[in-house]
Amino acid sequence: MDLQAASKDQLQQWAQQLEAEYETIKAQKLGLDLTRGKPSAEQLSLSNAMDGILDGNYSDDAGTDCRNYGGLDGIAGARALGAELIGAPASNVMAGGNSSLTLMHQAMSVAYHYGLNGPESAWNKQEKATFICPVPGYDRHYGVCEHIGINMVTVGMDANGPDMDAVEKLIKEDSSIVGMWAVPRFSNPTGVVYSDDVVARIAKLGNIANANFRVFWDNAYAVHALSDDAPQLANIWQACKEAGTEDSVLQFASTSKITFAGSGVAFLAASDANLSDFKKSLGFMTIGPDKVNQLRHVKFFAGDHALAEHMNKHAAIIRPRFESVLNHLQAAFGNNELGQWESAQGGYFISFDTQPGLAKEVVSLASEAGVKLTPAGATFPYGQDPQNSNIRIAPTVPTVEQVDEAMKVFVCCVKLASVKQALAA
Amino acid sequence: MDLQAASKDQLQQWAQQLEAEYETIKAQKLGLDLTRGKPSAEQLSLSNAMDGILDGNYSDDAGTDCRNYGGLDGIAGARALGAELIGAPASNVMAGGNSSLTLMHQAMSVAYHYGLNGPESAWNKQEKATFICPVPGYDRHYGVCEHIGINMVTVGMDANGPDMDAVEKLIKEDSSIVGMWAVPRFSNPTGVVYSDDVVARIAKLGNIANANFRVFWDNAYAVHALSDDAPQLANIWQACKEAGTEDSVLQFASTSKITFAGSGVAFLAASDANLSDFKKSLGFMTIGPDKVNQLRHVKFFAGDHALAEHMNKHAAIIRPRFESVLNHLQAAFGNNELGQWESAQGGYFISFDTQPGLAKEVVSLASEAGVKLTPAGATFPYGQDPQNSNIRIAPTVPTVEQVDEAMKVFVCCVKLASVKQALAA
Repeated sequence: MDLQAASKDQLQQWAQQLEAEYETIKAQKLGLDLTRGKPSAEQLSLSNAMDGILDGNYSDDAGTDCRNYGGLDGIAGARALGAELIGAPASNVMAGGNSSLTLMHQAMSVAYHYGLNGPESAWNKQEKATFICPVPGYDRHYGVCEHIGINMVTVGMDANGPDMDAVEKLIKEDSSIVGMWAVPRFSNPTGVVYSDDVVARIAKLGNIANANFRVFWDNAYAVHALSDDAPQLANIWQACKEAGTEDSVLQFASTSKITFAGSGVAFLAASDANLSDFKKSLGFMTIGPDKVNQLRHVKFFAGDHALAEHMNKHAAIIRPRFESVLNHLQAAFGNNELGQWESAQGGYFISFDTQPGLAKEVVSLASEAGVKLTPAGATFPYGQDPQNSNIRIAPTVPTVEQVDEAMKVFVCCVKLASVKQALAA
Repeated sequence: MDLQAASKDQLQQWAQQLEAEYETIKAQKLGLDLTRGKPSAEQLSLSNAMDGILDGNYSDDAGTDCRNYGGLDGIAGARALGAELIGAPASNVMAGGNSSLTLMHQAMSVAYHYGLNGPESAWNKQEKATFICPVPGYDRHYGVCEHIGINMVTVGMDANGPDMDAVEKLIKEDSSIVGMWAVPRFSNPTGVVYSDDVVARIAKLGNIANANFRVFWDNAYAVHALSDDAPQLANIWQACKEAGTEDSVLQFASTSKITFAGSGVAFLAASDANLSDFKKSLGFMTIGPDKVNQLRHVKFFAGDHALAEHMNKHAAIIRPRFESVLNHLQAAFGNNELGQWESAQGGYFISFDTQPGLAKEVVSLASEAGVKLTPAGATFPYGQDPQNSNIRIAPTVPTVEQVDEAMKVFVCCVKLASVKQALAA
């Protein structure tokens, strides 16, 4: 389908065909959903042994009674699990509650209101505090900034990660910059893994930024590869150590998409100085995390390779869904200009860019035809995609057959919107 | 021991006897601890059936898969459990994570930064925001205020609860007052239950205070009576409804001292308007609470009277410890002026007032003799007890024998400090 080369007659013919196809789909009254970035019931069932795993023994290896109060850092075994996910020393990892979003919101609140390096380092001492947001990105990250009152500026993403020239330029030119979001492996939603060069450059930002600058490194999909040959992520803890910028990065992870989405364990890894100030505030907010649930995780992942083997089972469930999406996209748009995407090799999303100006129309067409998609714009701060082209596809919850069905609709909607746009031009 | 009537010779004789007794105790090198307001291992074991209770079924009665994301309000069964604890409609109860302190900090943060009745209602719009703190009280409550930047003023507590004349006067005369702390049943640390009259007057505060005034009603010990004839607490939800002040009270509770201290479920009950604004902010902080743990609680307390029977078991464990403390106090100070206390009939604490000026000395003497007590001053905002007389006694963790041993030391230290003070006068 070469819209540029096509004659008006050809375009009209395509439009008619696509309208007919679209009406046929609509008549089926489908009820499909590609919005939900969460595990399927089949995936969740991989961890069903979690409840009851303690067998009446609520003490960890150190003899801590996990049922009682206390222990702001989490139990040692859980911190070690977090260290394995994040690639930082366990002594610099805190194991928290069920939500890394909560940890991120808390960390940003502390950085903004109280400071991560003493009260004078609080971002609210500045006239304006601005975060760099690689786009497309994760809407809940933007929500945290918006809620706390932090301004956002965007930089583009490509197959290597954020546009680092743009990031470095912003930091040098805009003194209000206090941090940057990053989803470094299987990024939400583009699925890209930051290249070694990008990781190294991010680690060095602490040398050109002001002392209060913090990268919020949300490694939500650290071990969520679809196959063994998926790209690895360079270790930013190590890179920061080499660059002398340990204080400039806060790392987050969780088991939400490993065990139970709502009942996992969240982790924060940070330098001694950052952890110390964070915990000063955290101690006002809680007496400690749910250590019993942490202990369940420790026991569930005891033994060599337990985590890797568990993630292989997730991959086996998710892979056919990703393949279905990618196959449909390749078949429909592999040889034309109607769409662009990355071949995500892990994570939970595939990100699709229509021709400029069509994302809302495609989402709306799909919705009318019984396929729910994430609202266009959600992958940008303030819900504003300046190109109106990005759509996030989340294929994990539906069955493979449902993904297949939904992608047929999706493809039809993209084509229809594109042809109509060409006709109107 | 009548210090006022005693001659100097008599005082010196007492001092010598007590010094000798104290040195004998010191020589024993005890290691006792009356500081910890937490359940004993024996109490925690009452809930050991919690892990494994789901038997592979992670769905609640409504069919919700509790393993997955979502559901900011918590699951219906957990909200019903919270409603039972709090005495408010389940539809006005949220079930959260493992910590009511976290809910209180979040609620106060929202009230301060964002407002519980639209942005203009945020307390930080005022030049100063002040909380009324009945004293003695709970140090972590003061910590939340201090952390967020809310000023504190104190009012006294007596056997009926806070001095309501003082509370009403403050509200009428000080426009910076935005709220008040309350631990209404088995108050921390005095153990008193607010009288019906006090509850009714607190419910009416919303009619004399400004619209943004909120009582933080921390009903941490709602069902923690030591016997069936312990005083009941009037229902403030009902009282607010009658007074038309539903928006003026936020109620908190948790199962931390019912099931597992660190792995319970926390609850917030509030008016529709308060809940709505709170959830607007909460939605930026989390995708939802640990619903699996909520489901465990629902199953654990299924059936009529399950909660009451469970609490009776706690009472049977705690009661002898409280009796030991009260017996020692009565025997030593029942017929003199050396100390005052309330006969707590529930909760986790007994609050003891020495003669003015002696609390720090008593705590220090006890510490040197191998008995750890909560630092003097901890029961007052900013750690400042103006009378230097209040000491919080927490007898739940040690064995009955240890409590007995520790109280002998405590009594000796109070007497010694008192006699030395009288001699120095």
